[in-house]
Amino acid sequence: MEEIMNRAQVLIEAIPYIRAFHGKTFVIKYGGHAMCDPELKQSVMLDITLLKYLGLNPILVHGGGPEITEMLGKIGKKSIRLHGQRVTDRETMDVVNMVLAGKINKELVTMLNHFGVKAAGLSGQDGGLLIAAKKKMPGGEDLGFVGEVEHVNPELLHTLLAKGYIPVVATVGVGVEGEIYNINADTVAGELAAALQAEKLIILTDVEGIYEDPADSSTLISKLKIAKALEMIEDGRIDSGMIPKVQACIYALRHGVSRTHIIDGRRPHSLLLEVLTDKGIGSMVVE
Amino acid sequence: MEEIMNRAQVLIEAIPYIRAFHGKTFVIKYGGHAMCDPELKQSVMLDITLLKYLGLNPILVHGGGPEITEMLGKIGKKSIRLHGQRVTDRETMDVVNMVLAGKINKELVTMLNHFGVKAAGLSGQDGGLLIAAKKKMPGGEDLGFVGEVEHVNPELLHTLLAKGYIPVVATVGVGVEGEIYNINADTVAGELAAALQAEKLIILTDVEGIYEDPADSSTLISKLKIAKALEMIEDGRIDSGMIPKVQACIYALRHGVSRTHIIDGRRPHSLLLEVLTDKGIGSMVVE
Amino acid sequence: MEEIMNRAQVLIEAIPYIRAFHGKTFVIKYGGHAMCDPELKQSVMLDITLLKYLGLNPILVHGGGPEITEMLGKIGKKSIRLHGQRVTDRETMDVVNMVLAGKINKELVTMLNHFGVKAAGLSGQDGGLLIAAKKKMPGGEDLGFVGEVEHVNPELLHTLLAKGYIPVVATVGVGVEGEIYNINADTVAGELAAALQAEKLIILTDVEGIYEDPADSSTLISKLKIAKALEMIEDGRIDSGMIPKVQACIYALRHGVSRTHIIDGRRPHSLLLEVLTDKGIGSMVVE
Amino acid sequence: MEEIMNRAQVLIEAIPYIRAFHGKTFVIKYGGHAMCDPELKQSVMLDITLLKYLGLNPILVHGGGPEITEMLGKIGKKSIRLHGQRVTDRETMDVVNMVLAGKINKELVTMLNHFGVKAAGLSGQDGGLLIAAKKKMPGGEDLGFVGEVEHVNPELLHTLLAKGYIPVVATVGVGVEGEIYNINADTVAGELAAALQAEKLIILTDVEGIYEDPADSSTLISKLKIAKALEMIEDGRIDSGMIPKVQACIYALRHGVSRTHIIDGRRPHSLLLEVLTDKGIGSMVVE
Amino acid sequence: MEEIMNRAQVLIEAIPYIRAFHGKTFVIKYGGHAMCDPELKQSVMLDITLLKYLGLNPILVHGGGPEITEMLGKIGKKSIRLHGQRVTDRETMDVVNMVLAGKINKELVTMLNHFGVKAAGLSGQDGGLLIAAKKKMPGGEDLGFVGEVEHVNPELLHTLLAKGYIPVVATVGVGVEGEIYNINADTVAGELAAALQAEKLIILTDVEGIYEDPADSSTLISKLKIAKALEMIEDGRIDSGMIPKVQACIYALRHGVSRTHIIDGRRPHSLLLEVLTDKGIGSMVVE
Amino acid sequence: MEEIMNRAQVLIEAIPYIRAFHGKTFVIKYGGHAMCDPELKQSVMLDITLLKYLGLNPILVHGGGPEITEMLGKIGKKSIRLHGQRVTDRETMDVVNMVLAGKINKELVTMLNHFGVKAAGLSGQDGGLLIAAKKKMPGGEDLGFVGEVEHVNPELLHTLLAKGYIPVVATVGVGVEGEIYNINADTVAGELAAALQAEKLIILTDVEGIYEDPADSSTLISKLKIAKALEMIEDGRIDSGMIPKVQACIYALRHGVSRTHIIDGRRPHSLLLEVLTDKGIGSMVVE
Repeated sequence: MEEIMNRAQVLIEAIPYIRAFHGKTFVIKYGGHAMCDPELKQSVMLDITLLKYLGLNPILVHGGGPEITEMLGKIGKKSIRLHGQRVTDRETMDVVNMVLAGKINKELVTMLNHFGVKAAGLSGQDGGLLIAAKKKMPGGEDLGFVGEVEHVNPELLHTLLAKGYIPVVATVGVGVEGEIYNINADTVAGELAAALQAEKLIILTDVEGIYEDPADSSTLISKLKIAKALEMIEDGRIDSGMIPKVQACIYALRHGVSRTHIIDGRRPHSLLLEVLTDKGIGSMVVE
Repeated sequence: MEEIMNRAQVLIEAIPYIRAFHGKTFVIKYGGHAMCDPELKQSVMLDITLLKYLGLNPILVHGGGPEITEMLGKIGKKSIRLHGQRVTDRETMDVVNMVLAGKINKELVTMLNHFGVKAAGLSGQDGGLLIAAKKKMPGGEDLGFVGEVEHVNPELLHTLLAKGYIPVVATVGVGVEGEIYNINADTVAGELAAALQAEKLIILTDVEGIYEDPADSSTLISKLKIAKALEMIEDGRIDSGMIPKVQACIYALRHGVSRTHIIDGRRPHSLLLEVLTDKGIGSMVVE
Repeated sequence: MEEIMNRAQVLIEAIPYIRAFHGKTFVIKYGGHAMCDPELKQSVMLDITLLKYLGLNPILVHGGGPEITEMLGKIGKKSIRLHGQRVTDRETMDVVNMVLAGKINKELVTMLNHFGVKAAGLSGQDGGLLIAAKKKMPGGEDLGFVGEVEHVNPELLHTLLAKGYIPVVATVGVGVEGEIYNINADTVAGELAAALQAEKLIILTDVEGIYEDPADSSTLISKLKIAKALEMIEDGRIDSGMIPKVQACIYALRHGVSRTHIIDGRRPHSLLLEVLTDKGIGSMVVE
Repeated sequence: MEEIMNRAQVLIEAIPYIRAFHGKTFVIKYGGHAMCDPELKQSVMLDITLLKYLGLNPILVHGGGPEITEMLGKIGKKSIRLHGQRVTDRETMDVVNMVLAGKINKELVTMLNHFGVKAAGLSGQDGGLLIAAKKKMPGGEDLGFVGEVEHVNPELLHTLLAKGYIPVVATVGVGVEGEIYNINADTVAGELAAALQAEKLIILTDVEGIYEDPADSSTLISKLKIAKALEMIEDGRIDSGMIPKVQACIYALRHGVSRTHIIDGRRPHSLLLEVLTDKGIGSMVVE
Repeated sequence: MEEIMNRAQVLIEAIPYIRAFHGKTFVIKYGGHAMCDPELKQSVMLDITLLKYLGLNPILVHGGGPEITEMLGKIGKKSIRLHGQRVTDRETMDVVNMVLAGKINKELVTMLNHFGVKAAGLSGQDGGLLIAAKKKMPGGEDLGFVGEVEHVNPELLHTLLAKGYIPVVATVGVGVEGEIYNINADTVAGELAAALQAEKLIILTDVEGIYEDPADSSTLISKLKIAKALEMIEDGRIDSGMIPKVQACIYALRHGVSRTHIIDGRRPHSLLLEVLTDKGIGSMVVE
Repeated sequence: MEEIMNRAQVLIEAIPYIRAFHGKTFVIKYGGHAMCDPELKQSVMLDITLLKYLGLNPILVHGGGPEITEMLGKIGKKSIRLHGQRVTDRETMDVVNMVLAGKINKELVTMLNHFGVKAAGLSGQDGGLLIAAKKKMPGGEDLGFVGEVEHVNPELLHTLLAKGYIPVVATVGVGVEGEIYNINADTVAGELAAALQAEKLIILTDVEGIYEDPADSSTLISKLKIAKALEMIEDGRIDSGMIPKVQACIYALRHGVSRTHIIDGRRPHSLLLEVLTDKGIGSMVVE
């Protein structure tokens, strides 16, 4: 009986969040380990399903690291990495495209449909969603088909959202000549959040958030100002894979997104907790 | 931490109900003691607020017993009762109308608005919602302005629902000559559920439900067939105030409403539990 | 035969007014003696019915003086008046609310429905129409639950107008804590006219209009400029109950309402004549 | 003052008609002397203007007899008549078309626009409104380009009505090969009334109505059943120009039009009186 | 087989034009000899039909010179011309109106309908499309009912376009007193193109275009700047009937029309070629 | 000059087809050699682009044979074939899915977007488009993840068509447990044509059509009745890969599709010629 009361209480406490976020767009970047563990994957998809039922408009942006590497392995292709990025020749790019848009994307779509919401997968080619160009490296290195977003054409996303679908986006971009590019998924998430004037950008990652001292997990920063974030990138406390995440947050904030979060995707239901409670998990990047 | 996980669990478990009931209409009859206790009143209004936020379309139908008696007392008017019903002369009817449509109705509207949903109060006169006629008693007794529903004109309800309002209905009907009638609120709830082809009719009352043996609370009937209900009315096991409730359920079922429930309004959040869990509280009347 | 020609003539002469006012909103304040005489009441409701049929959008705002006093009398409550206003304790406020929103409002709605138009009654609580605050008196006196309009939320009015209803408004406001206030009906009419950018505000009253010399009925002012009106309030020629009427006109004019009129509600069909002819009855307040 | 009251009374008395006919379609056939007298023409156009402002949807169908004859005279063309119908060669047909669609039609449109409503002229060619075929005479006579309606394509009328225009129709039809035909205007009016499922078909003519004894004006028949009308055509009491009018009424009635009237177009405002009062002028043909 | 490939090629080559002009409005002035030759008339109407099917919105504006003169001849009326314009008395104006709006307009409408598109004819009176005034001549001469456009009211055109009709416009204007005026068709075409913010104004005429030296057909100017055009009017190289055409182009360009063309209506399918290829026929007037 | 006239002629001759097919849905199955030759691929995509611009609604369904085999080869996987079908284990299925939905689908989308239309790729998982089940073989053989269509859910196709997109469909289906299946693309095309009540189903293949005698190319059957088709399957004249094509046509015809065609995809622009001329290429299967 008491359990029943608690149950009701939880629902009641979610009201202000449901109210505040009703009909609002949430861009959720999903990647890393949270994508490798089947149970975690299921838990994230359930969270997104619930957000949809509660009247929010989630958009899922995904990467696909390990599975790409595995597939490249199968065809006996070795990846060279330069400055932490995969040098992407034509054959590699085809594999990237196939794994992202053909495998992972459709798996996520299938899970969401299975939970009773309507999901539709798309990649940057569909409806010209992500117009890209070859990424220019400061040192002039040639990374092959690694690209940058030139322009976002969100019409197809609006069409799908208006009809109640959850768009699931594979981060492959298309160039003006029809060539395809692999684009960092965090960057794409930031761009989409900006183009859609999203309420929130939420990046699920493999750590708890950003640490004052990366070596000391007790130094998690719950609220990080842009200025300080830039400084921490400068002095190296934010480094490697965390850099594009923080930059995506900054980009989104500077283009009208209200709130951006980097949270721990390894913890079950961290997404729900971030959106529907005031527990303050992970790091929020703010202006 | 575990508490957080439970919290998420509760939300996740509500998904199938939210999904099934999305956009569906629920007629909720609210009366009796649940209306006298300020805390319970608040709890019921919170439940309705949450249902609205979860995408359901609740309609609230209310009575007003004790406050009417109190007001009649203030003006020194005594109520005569005949067959359990108040003999209602012109002056009494004016008081009924004022208390229901002017006081209680607006208090409920105010509470719902306060919780952040949009509510609008109406009574049977508004938009000709409840066209009524003088109730004919089998024995030919004259109960004065006690009426029966002749016709429901749901257009105004559809207008309000389409714009996201929770309609709150005071059960005063209007005759073809413009005269007003007091109508049993359970009956009105059943009529509205039928007219709107509601998903559910839920009647909040002061007991746990219907008992096989009214004297033995362990004999609560969780599922009651119409045939048996009629038999129990016949043999008196269902009597007095419970009769119109059961009849409202039967009427609604026979006119296309999917499910009807009589539940215990004294228990906090019983409404939420009925709608969002499969705990099976109270009595469900079924075809 | 000649009578028939005259009949046609009258209809023909109304054309320019029907054309000019088609689809325009008219806020009509109805109160005083015009509300006590059943025949006059019927005549005013017929006028409003006709305006609706001719394609105008009337909104009816009503007060309820004498019936409130009568009801207070019945429960043995005496009204104290301060500066011409009723000191309103909690119990008095409940009576005001019940008489206005529960009795008079519904009677007017019923009459309009009876004449074949669709009317819906509401008071300031419904849809948060009239957000109010305790009225601050210059001398610091406490009038109890006498309020002022803080904010008008016209959404529900737009919803009803769009679906062809005549909104009938009882002038009870609601405070941020859910408490209710009695607000002067002239003031509310002016606020609603401004919020809806009405074509006209028409206040029906118990005199012919505003007199140059109140003692001399031959000095009726047919057109009164705001500046002069303010002067006349200053020097006392406009006093007591006429002050809020004139102030409502000034408020409406200053907030975009095209025309404001104070006309004699005791004369049958004065409303029709004001709107559909150029006879120039009553006093028009102009910028 | 009394006059003012009468004026209001006339408006009030029109309410039930305005209410009953709101948004309903009225096909009005206008021709004969009512079209030759400029004052009468103005009066008919004013009536139609008022009906439009009152919320009805009038459609004007016109003939053009005398002006056609006049124009034919100017070019030195003589009309041969057979069984009361003009034998129409190619040159005559061109003149008919020009006078009807180019002159009279546009004059009526101009007058209506001048009175402040929106009117648009069209003839049977526009939007393929009137698909016609050569009229087959029982005796096999060749009347040239005299046609019959084969099919009505009302889409353009619906388009214009939906945007608030009064369609003014010249009764020229178009054959499957693009050839044009002169069609009796009464017949067209009956066909359009049927195609639009009009509320009323009203034919303005040069007599008071249909007489029991055409020689005795005291024998006007106010309500004529189809059966009797057919009998009177048989025995010749209804003859010549009155026959197509009565047949148009019968056709309309048999295809779903509620009411059909033949009234005296020579009497000013007879149209208004027919629609907005219960004076019962002219003859009504009923099933 | 090769022919089949060529056939496909032609369709493929039209793609960029179809794409660029989809849903765009084209005002096409049609007159002169192209209107007298039945085969050419058919060819122009086929071109317009195709443009409609390809998704463009053509509007046809027509004059009617020779047929007017012929009809005037029939009624024994001689036209006096002053400065190249017909002095138009009342009787002449009636003939102009009848021939334009009653004959030519309906013939064009009939042909278009026959080819399977929906066309509707209108003249300046319909829906108050062309509000005109008496043309003021610099020398003060009185040309009678020769008018100038005062105001274009394009609502009826928008209504027809929105429902898929091709509007066919006879260039008769209506004055504020309801009097009618004959207006130069080139001028009307320019005014309509401006009022509708057309993509193109295309004037079909009886020469190939504008010549540097009118005596030397090898001096056709394919692109003519406004400044030069004005200069050529000044020095007489552009004269008589070509002046209003060039002025219409200049007017349209200065009021937001993107492109204006004067092309050879005597050449079959010149309209198609202008719109769907880059052959550059005729003269384009540009800013 | 003559060429110009021919050019116009071709466009004019397409009118009846454009008219007849405006807004109609065409399901086009694209596969085989037409997909391997880059020039042919470009030509087919241009044809589809033109059809879209002409107002038709093409839907592209594609297979992917050779590229799948190539990819399987790269990962060293050998395909076993049983009764002409690939035995599809989990790893093979992943490759099928990736090549179809991730590579070919996106290439086609990119080409269409490049030609200026809006295209969006989807596979059977998206929006639950193709609900599938394991294919039951008559002999009980286990083909692994080879599936059959259980149910088509066309909502997402309607959403995309309504917004002007060309849907490009990869023929992967999803089972009730979320498992994926490879489905014959001809079969899917027939199912989609039926579900959308398409105007036409057109299957591009590697032969000219169906032959009376497969060994004699002069025996092409231009019109084949269902009965005869079934007979020819029976007696082996229609065999192997042609069987599912003919069965798809029969299925579509029996479920309300008007016309079905099997045409030669190796011939450039065969699609255009089939749709826009009456040359009668390939074989039409009819009821």
